[in-house]
Amino acid sequence: MKIYNESLTEMKKIVRRYTIQTTDLEIEKQVAQIIEKVRTKGDEALKSYEKQFDKVELDGLRISSSQLDEAYQNISPDLKDALQLAKHNIIAYHKMELEHGFIDAKLPGIIRGQKVTPLQRVGLYVPGGTAAYPSTILMNALPAKIAGVDEIIMVTPPQKDGVAPAVLAAAKVAGVTAVYQIGGAQAIAALAYGTESIPRVNKIVGPGNIFVATAKKQVFGQVAIDMVAGPSEIGILADQTADAKQLAADLLSQAEHDKRARAILITNSQTLATAVSGEVEKQLMTLPRKAIAEVAIKERSFIAIMDSVAEMFTLMNDVAPEHLEVQLADPMQYLSSIRNAGSVFLGKYASEPLGDYVAGPNHVLPTGGTAKFSSPLGVYDFIKKTSFIQFSKEALRKDLKAITTLARTEGLEAHARAVESRFKGDDDQ
Amino acid sequence: MKIYNESLTEMKKIVRRYTIQTTDLEIEKQVAQIIEKVRTKGDEALKSYEKQFDKVELDGLRISSSQLDEAYQNISPDLKDALQLAKHNIIAYHKMELEHGFIDAKLPGIIRGQKVTPLQRVGLYVPGGTAAYPSTILMNALPAKIAGVDEIIMVTPPQKDGVAPAVLAAAKVAGVTAVYQIGGAQAIAALAYGTESIPRVNKIVGPGNIFVATAKKQVFGQVAIDMVAGPSEIGILADQTADAKQLAADLLSQAEHDKRARAILITNSQTLATAVSGEVEKQLMTLPRKAIAEVAIKERSFIAIMDSVAEMFTLMNDVAPEHLEVQLADPMQYLSSIRNAGSVFLGKYASEPLGDYVAGPNHVLPTGGTAKFSSPLGVYDFIKKTSFIQFSKEALRKDLKAITTLARTEGLEAHARAVESRFKGDDDQ
Repeated sequence: MKIYNESLTEMKKIVRRYTIQTTDLEIEKQVAQIIEKVRTKGDEALKSYEKQFDKVELDGLRISSSQLDEAYQNISPDLKDALQLAKHNIIAYHKMELEHGFIDAKLPGIIRGQKVTPLQRVGLYVPGGTAAYPSTILMNALPAKIAGVDEIIMVTPPQKDGVAPAVLAAAKVAGVTAVYQIGGAQAIAALAYGTESIPRVNKIVGPGNIFVATAKKQVFGQVAIDMVAGPSEIGILADQTADAKQLAADLLSQAEHDKRARAILITNSQTLATAVSGEVEKQLMTLPRKAIAEVAIKERSFIAIMDSVAEMFTLMNDVAPEHLEVQLADPMQYLSSIRNAGSVFLGKYASEPLGDYVAGPNHVLPTGGTAKFSSPLGVYDFIKKTSFIQFSKEALRKDLKAITTLARTEGLEAHARAVESRFKGDDDQ
Repeated sequence: MKIYNESLTEMKKIVRRYTIQTTDLEIEKQVAQIIEKVRTKGDEALKSYEKQFDKVELDGLRISSSQLDEAYQNISPDLKDALQLAKHNIIAYHKMELEHGFIDAKLPGIIRGQKVTPLQRVGLYVPGGTAAYPSTILMNALPAKIAGVDEIIMVTPPQKDGVAPAVLAAAKVAGVTAVYQIGGAQAIAALAYGTESIPRVNKIVGPGNIFVATAKKQVFGQVAIDMVAGPSEIGILADQTADAKQLAADLLSQAEHDKRARAILITNSQTLATAVSGEVEKQLMTLPRKAIAEVAIKERSFIAIMDSVAEMFTLMNDVAPEHLEVQLADPMQYLSSIRNAGSVFLGKYASEPLGDYVAGPNHVLPTGGTAKFSSPLGVYDFIKKTSFIQFSKEALRKDLKAITTLARTEGLEAHARAVESRFKGDDDQ
């Protein structure tokens, strides 16, 4: 792995060079056409695109609930146990995210509050092929269930040999409402606008390739979307007390996801840097996904040596990684030093894959530096808020002058008159 | 006003016809060019665009804090009082939105939690000319302050006679960090990418014309944005007990905002419908913004008569209005019937403009049916969440099998090995 030994200022510039841009005008155009065709032609367009892109001719689009039951029955007992354990912990964690609104009735004649309402219908995109992750289905669907969403509509690209049983079993465990075998930009269009078979949703969540991501961005506004996710990332902060073999294994666990994944170690120890770099090369050799991980390590990953722990945190906050491991002694003390990260793994035993599967927090996390302004997927993504007020006549009278002053300052006479109309004919008006 | 007397099913279709699409490919292209130029040329591009679009030649871009002080000194005592009252109530309400994260330490050896962190720097767009609303500055900046945002960077188009004193005074009252006189798509580009003068922000909020809205959509992902706001809307649910004059005044208070604003009354009373329609025509005659309100009323607004109160709510939830007035007896009882609305005004004295200015809840609200999945602007828009976990070796060991089972099912061998590396050399591994 490349090791940098630069100043903090210089290193911040280098970090910026590793940032990738993903806009592709040709894809934008193609996706816009797909969306328009699905919008106007509905199911017919969906079937023709699936034939063209996924080489599958479909009769019906829906996968029946008995097919989900059957898939669940046929997976191994170990996988059943693992899915159930993950489900249990995800629910336990995400219930802590539930919000309940509030009401304020402290002032005479005034009630003001906020009401929390679940979204009615949500779409969940699940990629096909090797990127079809059962764990991701749980991570997306369970927070929606906890929020109280009525219907979760899952879509996933059709496969020649049928959709993977582990995916269908996870859909069953997560309790999704219906599964349709459609994929790509056409599936996003169907969820956003509805077709004869696919019900229109209020929000679309879930990962996908560049076509899916572009389509999500294009339908944003028509429906809500979770985020435009980039390749996976891990950042590790470690000092000389850390175990080089374990750090290398953790770096590789993200590198194996995608050639564009990035794995970053920031340390104050030259010895550790050298040891981890050597370990990464060594462990890489025996990985089944070596071809992918190798590119990610060579082109997108690095080790940076900083002078102090304080500088290590400053640089890492600038990176704003999706996953952040803190492999320092007494790691909890550094929680306040972390400003930008999706999910934090404290100490030697919080290896990143623990968070991917069973720890409980969500594994759908902000990537590409967006942890500076985005949160993990959560129950809060599946609710919305509505404010409400009720005023007595006397309470309104007290605010009358301020309202009419502001309205007339802004040139909005009808605003002033609307409030004044409540006092027409009163003596004291 | 147009009065419909149709079935619920028919009426839902009619509502859809009133929905507007706002994509304009020519503007998209123009905005993309502006963004690219600001990104590469910085301040120089900003100054040249301001000369071209706003016809103002600028030396410096910043409006000094002493200019804000001066503006505040020069506004009327009534306006000072009104701004201070609004500030007081907005703060009181929005403090109830503060979130604090959580920690769960119930299970042996396991700590899991969520940390809430304010965004570091936020940009606030304030339109120029007649759409420059002091109240909107308070509504956008105060929730950011309460969230704990370090810096609020306000931008507003330069004016030949200088930016309106009420706007600068509101910036002072709201406590924004710095004000720059730039506007349009170029201002959004500057906030998203930074220039020599303008610091790059993490999120951009605030209303604007189609160029501003398009630019916000294009930089989304690079930074966060609040929402792509459409024209203002009011929906009113009323029965025969309501006052036609007051309802008409409230409908007009939204119609005066924009020719594309919409004002919708849904009632079960033909008598009320006729009376409100007549009152709207009458009150319209004497409005200073008659030319605007008239178009909104004629082209975008209507009254719908439904058979029952239940149908009235069903149709209104389909509209999902930005502002919803419930002018029914004992209105609080209907809170649970409201699924989709930005802000709700209960009863005779909760006239909509009360909420625009001083009641406390935010007046930046989801428009165009997006209340189906969006919330009012709030403190939650200026924070982000980070999950964290810490596990003991024993706690990790208990989850080991589930993790490796899921990892290998998903074909992610390096994930399994990363966790197993923690037990290398142990007897019981």
